[in-house]
Amino acid sequence: MPLSGEMLIGSTSVRGTSGSMRATNPATCAEMEPEFFGGTVGDVDAACSLAEAAFDAYRATSLEKRARFLEAIAQGIIDLGDELVERVMAEAGLPRGRVEGERGRTAGQLRLFANLAREGRWLSATIDPALPERKPLPRADLRAQMIPVGPVAVFGASNFPLAFSVAGGDTASALAAGCPVVAKSHPSHPGTSELVGRVIQRAVADAGLPEGVFSLLIDGADNAVGQALVQHPAIMAVGFTGSRRVGRILVGLAATREVPIPVYAEMSSINPVFLLPAALSARAEAIGQGLVDSVTLGTGQFCTKPGIVIGIAGPDFDRFRTAALAALEAKPATNMLNPGILKAYGDGTDRWNNDEGVHALGSGSAAAACTCGGQPMLFATSAHYFLRYPNLLEEVFGPASLLIECATVDELVAIAKHIDGQLTATLHLTDDDAALAKTLLPILERKAGRILCNGFPTGVEVTHAMVHGGPSPATSDSRVTSVGSMAIDRFLRPVCYQDFPAALLPEAIQDGNPLHLVRLMDGKLQLA
Amino acid sequence: MPLSGEMLIGSTSVRGTSGSMRATNPATCAEMEPEFFGGTVGDVDAACSLAEAAFDAYRATSLEKRARFLEAIAQGIIDLGDELVERVMAEAGLPRGRVEGERGRTAGQLRLFANLAREGRWLSATIDPALPERKPLPRADLRAQMIPVGPVAVFGASNFPLAFSVAGGDTASALAAGCPVVAKSHPSHPGTSELVGRVIQRAVADAGLPEGVFSLLIDGADNAVGQALVQHPAIMAVGFTGSRRVGRILVGLAATREVPIPVYAEMSSINPVFLLPAALSARAEAIGQGLVDSVTLGTGQFCTKPGIVIGIAGPDFDRFRTAALAALEAKPATNMLNPGILKAYGDGTDRWNNDEGVHALGSGSAAAACTCGGQPMLFATSAHYFLRYPNLLEEVFGPASLLIECATVDELVAIAKHIDGQLTATLHLTDDDAALAKTLLPILERKAGRILCNGFPTGVEVTHAMVHGGPSPATSDSRVTSVGSMAIDRFLRPVCYQDFPAALLPEAIQDGNPLHLVRLMDGKLQLA
Repeated sequence: MPLSGEMLIGSTSVRGTSGSMRATNPATCAEMEPEFFGGTVGDVDAACSLAEAAFDAYRATSLEKRARFLEAIAQGIIDLGDELVERVMAEAGLPRGRVEGERGRTAGQLRLFANLAREGRWLSATIDPALPERKPLPRADLRAQMIPVGPVAVFGASNFPLAFSVAGGDTASALAAGCPVVAKSHPSHPGTSELVGRVIQRAVADAGLPEGVFSLLIDGADNAVGQALVQHPAIMAVGFTGSRRVGRILVGLAATREVPIPVYAEMSSINPVFLLPAALSARAEAIGQGLVDSVTLGTGQFCTKPGIVIGIAGPDFDRFRTAALAALEAKPATNMLNPGILKAYGDGTDRWNNDEGVHALGSGSAAAACTCGGQPMLFATSAHYFLRYPNLLEEVFGPASLLIECATVDELVAIAKHIDGQLTATLHLTDDDAALAKTLLPILERKAGRILCNGFPTGVEVTHAMVHGGPSPATSDSRVTSVGSMAIDRFLRPVCYQDFPAALLPEAIQDGNPLHLVRLMDGKLQLA
Repeated sequence: MPLSGEMLIGSTSVRGTSGSMRATNPATCAEMEPEFFGGTVGDVDAACSLAEAAFDAYRATSLEKRARFLEAIAQGIIDLGDELVERVMAEAGLPRGRVEGERGRTAGQLRLFANLAREGRWLSATIDPALPERKPLPRADLRAQMIPVGPVAVFGASNFPLAFSVAGGDTASALAAGCPVVAKSHPSHPGTSELVGRVIQRAVADAGLPEGVFSLLIDGADNAVGQALVQHPAIMAVGFTGSRRVGRILVGLAATREVPIPVYAEMSSINPVFLLPAALSARAEAIGQGLVDSVTLGTGQFCTKPGIVIGIAGPDFDRFRTAALAALEAKPATNMLNPGILKAYGDGTDRWNNDEGVHALGSGSAAAACTCGGQPMLFATSAHYFLRYPNLLEEVFGPASLLIECATVDELVAIAKHIDGQLTATLHLTDDDAALAKTLLPILERKAGRILCNGFPTGVEVTHAMVHGGPSPATSDSRVTSVGSMAIDRFLRPVCYQDFPAALLPEAIQDGNPLHLVRLMDGKLQLA
């Protein structure tokens, strides 16, 4: 089925009437077929009203049925085969290996949430039995479970056209929780979005679910669709990965609704890497190579790219820098996601180039003309300067990083205290660095959602212990993660049922535990 | 030790310099000794800076030490004996039995959180072991735990001078999580606040904790202390119980900080009670009596007071109304908490009295002069009228309730759909009402944090399954509860530790499970 450029509103395809756009191939700067047609506020209302109408039926589906629905989406994405892989490659400028890897991750993520849905631990089924003999007053029978919050709006991210987009982690966790999803496709990869959206649309139909469980909208040039989506009364939560500027707009729109709703916006991070003295002495060259590999991976377009690297000046730091520069010079310019992101990368590195306290250390190969190639670059500054100019805390999205030389250990600790909230913070250390690490850890725990030792932050596993989140301004809500099984918690809220007759109790909290759940019974956890 | 009228800033007592006030005895309208002195923005900064300085040491305390600290506070409150009971009675106009009961509840709540701290389940310790042989890439060792968010501001509520105030549920859950607390005393019960605050101050010292773990501030007439508290950069979350107006101001202040923080504001609720036909037929008189008992309990000053009662017009509803009126006429006017709340109650009932679609049904005894007695009242309207005038959705705080007669079952369902978010919703039903109940339940699950059958919503148990929360505008965050053990989740955020050397791992996620926690190991829950 060729791409139509249409939106998917419930079970229908709708051609938008609010302007049109085409994707650009970042490898050639050429516009691609077909035309995609932007929607209107009326289309938003249609999709959200269908989602609202579908919500009660969808949340009443059995956990098994919900799990199979997610697995069908995963399989459908795999079954798209090369049609999908080639469209992603063309729209996002990513190499085949990366796209196939991301496809596997996306399917794996859907399957993880399928298993999670099946297991039902996230229902937090809790029973406090009645105490009819208690004095002075008897205690009622109290039972609680989590229920889904309602329809969720998902804004696809440019940098993971599959894993953080139409069927990415936000959609997978919202659907697992029992929330219908209204997605807005990212203008960088509208064709990828349509292909994946049609897979979900088909899975909804095949499972016999109400059509409103999923819709896919396309924004016009004026962003009216995205704004109306966040403001629609049926939408009860928003998942977003993108820039700080847009994230804050969405948070503001959500906060000023008649019924404010949570926006889970993952926005920006400079992912500091601290090189502790003994580690630098032991492994300066390997760290230099590893850093540059991480900075340039995916053309530096990961939320977890190391944006600043902090170490103590001296011969070991010199060895590290030399190794990093040698590694950098061997790196080609690879494609950035779209011309807008290339332009922003140029603006960011220009800002550093024009900063009197920052100097360029070196670069990888320059990009060929007529492509969106991003040239890898390293810059340097002193801790003294960095601590004085908070504008250096801003993320430069792309394959560049800033090496910060500290005169003293105290300056290194001062930088840990100085940085904003981050997705990640990394320590390179040996046993001999333990004292300094113990000073840094309490600081970094308060700054980051994930702390790594002796690795690099790119590469975010989809597991139970993963936290892809962090304090403001890295995200809008440090209490949650957007990757890993805990991501489902974003779309749940607790309800208590007091003295319910057995016939009316939800299955999760019925006597006899018919769903075989882990439950908290009178304060004691009971395995299924 | 006589009351001093001073603030408690860490280990010191500080006399405020921003005006002074006295508490009013609602039973006599007389002002009470001593004078209490309001603080300044500088006092807020002093308290918050101490809290920030105390945070890392406090969160590093063992779970056992934290538990004993909470238990010491509980015991200290009990040990205050009649000095505390009489001060609460005088400041809040509450009878001895209620005050002693609330004291027991407050101590019990502190002990529940002590046990919860000890057990550590809320740490959500999670371990995904490394998979060094995985292809194409090995998996890192990933471990996660919850950590406390940082210092918490607690705004005491007027209507529970003990259980929702200085050492109430917000403070208990924040301290259990590992967060220092900066409390602001409620102007209705400054003496109660000082007595309880001194107990906590002493417990901090006795436990050898840093002084900044607890401070108690007093606001001047201009509310500058409360505002500065929410805006102070050291404060990372806010607990508030009070009016919708003030709650929304605090939410707005918190959202516009450089680093926005969550405000857990429990604001207002009209707690609908639905009388289903078969239950009304079977138990009209008992329901009428029970309703009036619940409406007038604590002079109607519970967040969960039934504010509207919905049934189908007919002889059974007439029987119910007659019984309710008879019960009402036997009710005395009991004290309201302060003259301001009495005035607001008068304004609210005047609004109903002057509403052409609402009529007064009857009342209890009038109040004596020179007291803050609130006269119990019942009003009536039709569902048709109620559905047309959303101003009737506003809470009238005090011993009044509005009976709503529906012409049809459809109107009753329409009211369930029409109401705002609530703390509670109640159904009176028998087996014969099951079909209608099944229609109502999915609607009410989306409207309320707690749903009750055949009871009344006043009386909130402090247990694991309790949800004292609900969708906006009942609270500012429907994902949490302010009562019960889940309240601790408000003050936690997850952190992931990747490839940490054993010596640097937090105890909760070390190999060998030294804290004997429930942990999620490679996706499987393991009991301690």
